[in-house]
Amino acid sequence: MEFHFLGTGAGVPSTKRNVSSLAIRFLQCNGSVWMVDCGEGTQQQILRSSIKLSKLEKIFITHLHGDHIFGLPGLLGSRSFQGGITPLTIYGPKGIKAYIEQCLSLSNTTLLYPLSVVELEEGIIFEDKHYSVQCLLLEHVMPSYGFRIEEKAQSGELLVDKLKEKGITPGPLYKKVKAKEKIQLSTGEWIDGAEFVGPEVPGRIVTILGDTKPCEAAVKLAVNADVLIHEATFSIENQEMAHQYGHSTAYDAAKIARNAKVKTLILNHISARYEGKSHLLETEACEVFPNTYIAHDSYIHTLLRSKSS
Amino acid sequence: MEFHFLGTGAGVPSTKRNVSSLAIRFLQCNGSVWMVDCGEGTQQQILRSSIKLSKLEKIFITHLHGDHIFGLPGLLGSRSFQGGITPLTIYGPKGIKAYIEQCLSLSNTTLLYPLSVVELEEGIIFEDKHYSVQCLLLEHVMPSYGFRIEEKAQSGELLVDKLKEKGITPGPLYKKVKAKEKIQLSTGEWIDGAEFVGPEVPGRIVTILGDTKPCEAAVKLAVNADVLIHEATFSIENQEMAHQYGHSTAYDAAKIARNAKVKTLILNHISARYEGKSHLLETEACEVFPNTYIAHDSYIHTLLRSKSS
Repeated sequence: MEFHFLGTGAGVPSTKRNVSSLAIRFLQCNGSVWMVDCGEGTQQQILRSSIKLSKLEKIFITHLHGDHIFGLPGLLGSRSFQGGITPLTIYGPKGIKAYIEQCLSLSNTTLLYPLSVVELEEGIIFEDKHYSVQCLLLEHVMPSYGFRIEEKAQSGELLVDKLKEKGITPGPLYKKVKAKEKIQLSTGEWIDGAEFVGPEVPGRIVTILGDTKPCEAAVKLAVNADVLIHEATFSIENQEMAHQYGHSTAYDAAKIARNAKVKTLILNHISARYEGKSHLLETEACEVFPNTYIAHDSYIHTLLRSKSS
Repeated sequence: MEFHFLGTGAGVPSTKRNVSSLAIRFLQCNGSVWMVDCGEGTQQQILRSSIKLSKLEKIFITHLHGDHIFGLPGLLGSRSFQGGITPLTIYGPKGIKAYIEQCLSLSNTTLLYPLSVVELEEGIIFEDKHYSVQCLLLEHVMPSYGFRIEEKAQSGELLVDKLKEKGITPGPLYKKVKAKEKIQLSTGEWIDGAEFVGPEVPGRIVTILGDTKPCEAAVKLAVNADVLIHEATFSIENQEMAHQYGHSTAYDAAKIARNAKVKTLILNHISARYEGKSHLLETEACEVFPNTYIAHDSYIHTLLRSKSS
């Protein structure tokens, strides 16, 4: 799982940080891509990355501020122009559907792929055999959502050496072993498949939050996450202003990470006022939660699946 | 008058050419800026230029295709965020007002400056003591306008040396001379102010066209222009396709320039298929109209006012 930070600034673009967008590439799922937020210029950022619009399957919009959505209409059109034909689903707050429809209709943009738009309500918004996605409302100056992506546990590996010791060679029996069935061998002996399968590989948990001041929902969404991607618009010196505008400080983000017992915290959505000194935000957070990174545009964070529990 | 080409591509952005936008800086008018079209990423292009959003006074939108308008909402918000407080007027085709209002309203974008939106009808759409702007409908797959900016002629310079020969020194009389009045000097002699004023300085004429196939209105708007900025989405090899989609070839643009007797032609709106070989479009046009340039992102073309007619 790769996190491609396409835009890590707050509110307005700067020469160093574009407005919000994050792409997640699922290495185990044919390189398919999900996106969280799509500020203006996201498609241009993608041109400078290894992400392919044709692989994009889902876009999750945290909230409707312009720096999180104004890149959507152009990206949708370009995906079609570039030959994208597979379905795309957008999940976003109430109002997102009318916005997309109006922009596409006014500009006569025809999409050559099926587009679905799902307006969010709290709870599980997507589930398949690989992943589930849950969203909850955070606390911002407009409805803003956080997302918890949970990967399903994978069954353990076949213990091939142990099977071979029993004289069981690759063939139809392996499927029954993998399913942990009780099996009678040709020798008449019964074996328990479960004894020949390694431990389950737990799924990864990734939490990505929209703009928010510190809140309970942030902790709920982040509990035990492998990675928490949290806004840190301001530093602790501007905490009062941060909270007034529904934002967090790096210190706030670190406290959420610590309380939720996450493994890694990535700070995102950095105000342009910290240009050239954003490492201070990282330092501020590290004092509370040491395993903190600060995102920058083009930063790629890789989260490997652990081999066993 | 400086033309800052912010986006010179067609349809979708590439790493070399962003989608459409052009800024015109009026050096004689306090550096005020007008813009023609505002594709996605225009505000980011401005960050890499010497243009200041606070100086932006007018935006002319040629047509409502996404590559010409999807940068508008973000640019309007950022102008306010960056402290722009002076009025801004947008001129665009029918539908532009509802688009802007919906985007700003949905995203809770508050502008701290007065914004006016004027929906276009053919004719003179703006006039003050310095400039007039006329628009006409071109021929594209949706209503697409071209703009003719005419600068008013400036009165000639005072012929100071000639005045001094007559013993007339700087003072209140100069104003009357400038106004070409007949004046009695203290010696009793009458002079004709008109004889002490140089020739009128003609205004510049600039024509900027939206997407179009070759049409009569293009020639009308461009007649005798100092600069014609014309789309050249395709080369002559793709002429049939160009016209089918309401576009022009470089050859078409050159013919319009020649027929309209313009002084300089600048080719713009170049398809990404010509990346690395767009000079071929310039060559194609130069065969018909030698004084042709091809625009690229960050290109600045300066048009000086001639000193006399």
